[in-house]
Amino acid sequence: MIYFQNDYAEGAHETILNKLLETNEVQTPGYGTDEFTSRAKELIKQACASPEADVHFLTGGTQTNTTVISAMLRPHQGVISADSGHIAVHEAGAIESTGHKISTLASDDGKLTHEQVDAAITDHFNDPTHEHIVQPGLVYISQPTELGTMYSKTELTQLKKVCDKHDVPLFIDGARLGYALAAKESDLKLADVAALCDVFYIGGTKVGALFGEAVVITNEKWQKDFRSIIKQRGAMLAKGRLLGIQFETLFTDNLYGRLSSHAIEMADKLKQAFLDIGISFKYEPSTNQLFPIVPNQLIEQLSSRFAFYQWEKYDNEHTVCRFITSWATKEEQIQALKEDLTTYHLVK
Amino acid sequence: MIYFQNDYAEGAHETILNKLLETNEVQTPGYGTDEFTSRAKELIKQACASPEADVHFLTGGTQTNTTVISAMLRPHQGVISADSGHIAVHEAGAIESTGHKISTLASDDGKLTHEQVDAAITDHFNDPTHEHIVQPGLVYISQPTELGTMYSKTELTQLKKVCDKHDVPLFIDGARLGYALAAKESDLKLADVAALCDVFYIGGTKVGALFGEAVVITNEKWQKDFRSIIKQRGAMLAKGRLLGIQFETLFTDNLYGRLSSHAIEMADKLKQAFLDIGISFKYEPSTNQLFPIVPNQLIEQLSSRFAFYQWEKYDNEHTVCRFITSWATKEEQIQALKEDLTTYHLVK
Amino acid sequence: MIYFQNDYAEGAHETILNKLLETNEVQTPGYGTDEFTSRAKELIKQACASPEADVHFLTGGTQTNTTVISAMLRPHQGVISADSGHIAVHEAGAIESTGHKISTLASDDGKLTHEQVDAAITDHFNDPTHEHIVQPGLVYISQPTELGTMYSKTELTQLKKVCDKHDVPLFIDGARLGYALAAKESDLKLADVAALCDVFYIGGTKVGALFGEAVVITNEKWQKDFRSIIKQRGAMLAKGRLLGIQFETLFTDNLYGRLSSHAIEMADKLKQAFLDIGISFKYEPSTNQLFPIVPNQLIEQLSSRFAFYQWEKYDNEHTVCRFITSWATKEEQIQALKEDLTTYHLVK
Amino acid sequence: MIYFQNDYAEGAHETILNKLLETNEVQTPGYGTDEFTSRAKELIKQACASPEADVHFLTGGTQTNTTVISAMLRPHQGVISADSGHIAVHEAGAIESTGHKISTLASDDGKLTHEQVDAAITDHFNDPTHEHIVQPGLVYISQPTELGTMYSKTELTQLKKVCDKHDVPLFIDGARLGYALAAKESDLKLADVAALCDVFYIGGTKVGALFGEAVVITNEKWQKDFRSIIKQRGAMLAKGRLLGIQFETLFTDNLYGRLSSHAIEMADKLKQAFLDIGISFKYEPSTNQLFPIVPNQLIEQLSSRFAFYQWEKYDNEHTVCRFITSWATKEEQIQALKEDLTTYHLVK
Repeated sequence: MIYFQNDYAEGAHETILNKLLETNEVQTPGYGTDEFTSRAKELIKQACASPEADVHFLTGGTQTNTTVISAMLRPHQGVISADSGHIAVHEAGAIESTGHKISTLASDDGKLTHEQVDAAITDHFNDPTHEHIVQPGLVYISQPTELGTMYSKTELTQLKKVCDKHDVPLFIDGARLGYALAAKESDLKLADVAALCDVFYIGGTKVGALFGEAVVITNEKWQKDFRSIIKQRGAMLAKGRLLGIQFETLFTDNLYGRLSSHAIEMADKLKQAFLDIGISFKYEPSTNQLFPIVPNQLIEQLSSRFAFYQWEKYDNEHTVCRFITSWATKEEQIQALKEDLTTYHLVK
Repeated sequence: MIYFQNDYAEGAHETILNKLLETNEVQTPGYGTDEFTSRAKELIKQACASPEADVHFLTGGTQTNTTVISAMLRPHQGVISADSGHIAVHEAGAIESTGHKISTLASDDGKLTHEQVDAAITDHFNDPTHEHIVQPGLVYISQPTELGTMYSKTELTQLKKVCDKHDVPLFIDGARLGYALAAKESDLKLADVAALCDVFYIGGTKVGALFGEAVVITNEKWQKDFRSIIKQRGAMLAKGRLLGIQFETLFTDNLYGRLSSHAIEMADKLKQAFLDIGISFKYEPSTNQLFPIVPNQLIEQLSSRFAFYQWEKYDNEHTVCRFITSWATKEEQIQALKEDLTTYHLVK
Repeated sequence: MIYFQNDYAEGAHETILNKLLETNEVQTPGYGTDEFTSRAKELIKQACASPEADVHFLTGGTQTNTTVISAMLRPHQGVISADSGHIAVHEAGAIESTGHKISTLASDDGKLTHEQVDAAITDHFNDPTHEHIVQPGLVYISQPTELGTMYSKTELTQLKKVCDKHDVPLFIDGARLGYALAAKESDLKLADVAALCDVFYIGGTKVGALFGEAVVITNEKWQKDFRSIIKQRGAMLAKGRLLGIQFETLFTDNLYGRLSSHAIEMADKLKQAFLDIGISFKYEPSTNQLFPIVPNQLIEQLSSRFAFYQWEKYDNEHTVCRFITSWATKEEQIQALKEDLTTYHLVK
Repeated sequence: MIYFQNDYAEGAHETILNKLLETNEVQTPGYGTDEFTSRAKELIKQACASPEADVHFLTGGTQTNTTVISAMLRPHQGVISADSGHIAVHEAGAIESTGHKISTLASDDGKLTHEQVDAAITDHFNDPTHEHIVQPGLVYISQPTELGTMYSKTELTQLKKVCDKHDVPLFIDGARLGYALAAKESDLKLADVAALCDVFYIGGTKVGALFGEAVVITNEKWQKDFRSIIKQRGAMLAKGRLLGIQFETLFTDNLYGRLSSHAIEMADKLKQAFLDIGISFKYEPSTNQLFPIVPNQLIEQLSSRFAFYQWEKYDNEHTVCRFITSWATKEEQIQALKEDLTTYHLVK
């Protein structure tokens, strides 16, 4: 079985594993107070052109979203998210478990528009009963989104401007951030992302690490005591070095960028393979997540050899599927799929 | 600097790292639904002689305590713990963050007695105002305790009996469980532990793994939907295989037991080195945590070369220190410390 | 200014105030352990034909919803509600503050259909990723709804059947229950309501009391320790007698029923007054809440003398308004509004 | 049975009841936006000499403590309290239910000393592991305390100074504040209390009202959005007027002060009655709560006619009891008790 189901099907890039082996016997203090972690933080601040930022390493995405969001809200506040946002759908109520509502806005492409956010916040405070309604205290977006789409520099700039206007901070879930930065149509650099939000994170789990997400807090207002909050959420790794070593490796010689670019190249080939046989996409295929509209007959045929996700029914004869590439995807895996697609096309 | 500060100063046992390397390119589904994890669960159930138990793998101790305890309590209930219990002291309010009070009972040696627990629960329900007081809903103990002491089989049996009498479940924090099982004075086997509580966990982070704790839910009552609760607490690792692989390795050829025994041997030598120069212990030295009462002058001398923890003031001239050995402690590290102790003793 | 804005614009029915005066100097124990409260509980159990039920008195609706719902859910569970449900809209995130998500289902008339609930629960458990999604743990409905509509006996029976099928309990918010019971089209008696859910409450605040809601727990499963949960939520009144006295009065000589019927009579006259000048209603006008589609010009005219709520825009020239009658509405208030409506109609 | 068990055994002072009757038919908007409430707020700000303060009315003590404390803490922070503090003992875990730990300090008389608080906060931040420990985010005291003792102006000034030094706010639970202000030894005026903390409340439930606590937020930092937090906690009364009317009455013609003084006079007589027969007190008898050390034989005799609370065992022959007077205590009730005491003394 060849997996296009997700971007966490393998272990880690070999450079990272080798580094873990090489440093294995070095003794360090715990909880991220070691030198590997210090160096990793410095490398990330440089890459973000944010010397004043605070950087923290956590283990996974849901954990990171929960820790950050609950740290940034007062009790009566909630977080605005697209209705397809990961926190609103697939985190088992993690945000709500910390006492906060997710106020979802409808989105066709996984993105929030600045007009939408502006209207939602303005409407809230104009409502005469607003004291009885959860107050918007944070805006959450994903870059890239859960639907594989991306914010452009203009879109992100406008969104940040609206947030600033209302004094509501902006948080970016970057679980797959590398893949957006490496996308061909992307006009956002890492430093732009850092400059255009209050807090964001750089996903490692899906981009070559065993696990790990690097939270970057650029707005000083949210930096205070964040380590205590990490600890309270059960998100402070005893052997914090494991995160430090991984991120030091990822941000040395631009490994993070190179791994991301590889996934995009693989996705482009996969995209072309679908297009070649006349299959189009539900959402704009920009990053490493592709949502082709696949004939049900083809799904059946592919399923014996390939693992992928059936996202949603399209019509009686087609289903939107999700195919994902990653830092670990191999040319021959793409080739294998391509062959099956071609065979199907010829037969049909 | 040689570390006796904690048992998480190094990476992982090389067998584990090698296994991670070897399996690195295998593609698996996520979230612990892979085959490594399945096998690890089976091995643990066998080792616990608990074929009906549920086993789950989490990343760290605070995370595990929080996930288990919050899953087992109704809103108005709290958890009984020794005042030295890790959850009561060093988890940054993680339990309280889920809405539950920790009711602490005073303990000189880190252990709860069955009389103490019986009295606490009985007194609660006898209090005419008990509806206004947090109800005991769970008893939490650590084996070994945070002070390096251990429950005997008799003690644990009595404690479980009291819990059953009051229909209050018993949860054992086994972050260092291997070191208690391997201790010379121990009369408890893993299967005994499994039989004498409702839920417990087998710590990996401190016993040879990079990270990981194996929760064993022996009482069927608490098994339902536990995976959703793990996910909600941000404690479900995307690459769950990493936990599966580590625990499969630890529970193959009794690696877990052998690593634990090694730490105990090292601790025995360390204990003897202290005793040899007339230094006694604040708490009974049974496991891998030693609490010698060290002259302040000696502390100063040792501190240049060894890292250890100054636990609490003993008197004006002595401090209780904590020295910890682990699966990774080397003979020569013990030897080095022993030499320094002897030198100090001769000079003095 | 004459208020049709809500059903809590006045104090309490004079019988209640007189009873409070009359009993004022009687000394009683606190927290609802007094004899007035005991008698009130008995009267309600009789009225509900539910001798085995537990009855508790709380102060207000949001408090009651929060206390009940948080008592009935495990951490990973959420509550299903119509998107217009009070808990989903106007309780400032009270439910989420206890850690639980509200999963809303779209509704045009404020009601949930049994098909809708069945599909939502079935779909949840059929979703292969359901462990990552908030689990439906409770169904919340309002009788009458926030839009003035009502469930029929058939509808409620079907809903309860679906809930039972999935082993998910049903909770009815009866903040205005009296007005539904008294409605002309109603085929549900109080005992039917009690029999067709697991927990519900009988609103006093909006039906003649100064304040107070009577929670009736008919399903034994949810009765245990409920007083502790009330206390923990800050919902246990020190002078519990105040609630006991009020509900004893309301359930003596059917005062609750008589006050409810009065409001319905007043609402019928109001309804007719709107119909007489050709104004129709957005939602079926069944209870004490009316939602006429009012010309904006008329709104302006009425606003100088009457207080009512502008619910939502209908079209460029009309707005849906909410007019409410209550136990306290006077004939002359209806008459005054009717005159204004007629004048407007004639002039126009 | 004559009640000395608590200060909420009766209804309300007749002036309040009459005012409720008199205003009963006035129509007002809900949720404390009415004119009675506005006037009550003004009267309280005047009485506190705090024109810039925000005043809010809630229903009961536990509710008020929970609402205020949870509004003032970030997630990783806890509240410091004497171990006898009401929040630590008799609120069923209400504070913890909002996610926060109560860090108790030992106290013999129910009061915290400024040295104690200074040391606790200083020690916390000096602890090298403090990131793993709940951070002190608020100091909670009761005036008078749960043991009937009081802070002097000097003591409160020192405490506030320590809090300011550490930038940790001070919150005063004034459930019985009137009785401290009226106490003979008191050197604190209401305006002093307002000036020497950040937030406090003026209890109505125990001082003549049916129910109600007036929260006074003097420190502007904590004023923002407090009404939303009240609503979220289920603590916003629909008929907010009931609180406005009661507090307007209490703060007109100094009714609050006069009722408080009456209780103190009654307590003085009661105190003398005990002293007259040689019974002394466990805690300094300053306010309306007395803790005589009563022979068990006398307790038995009194119990047939008087209700009071057996607080704790003193020795094998004596029990510390709690006798409480209130605004409602009658001369003849004191006289009756005095007679029984004298009889007992003579016989013995």
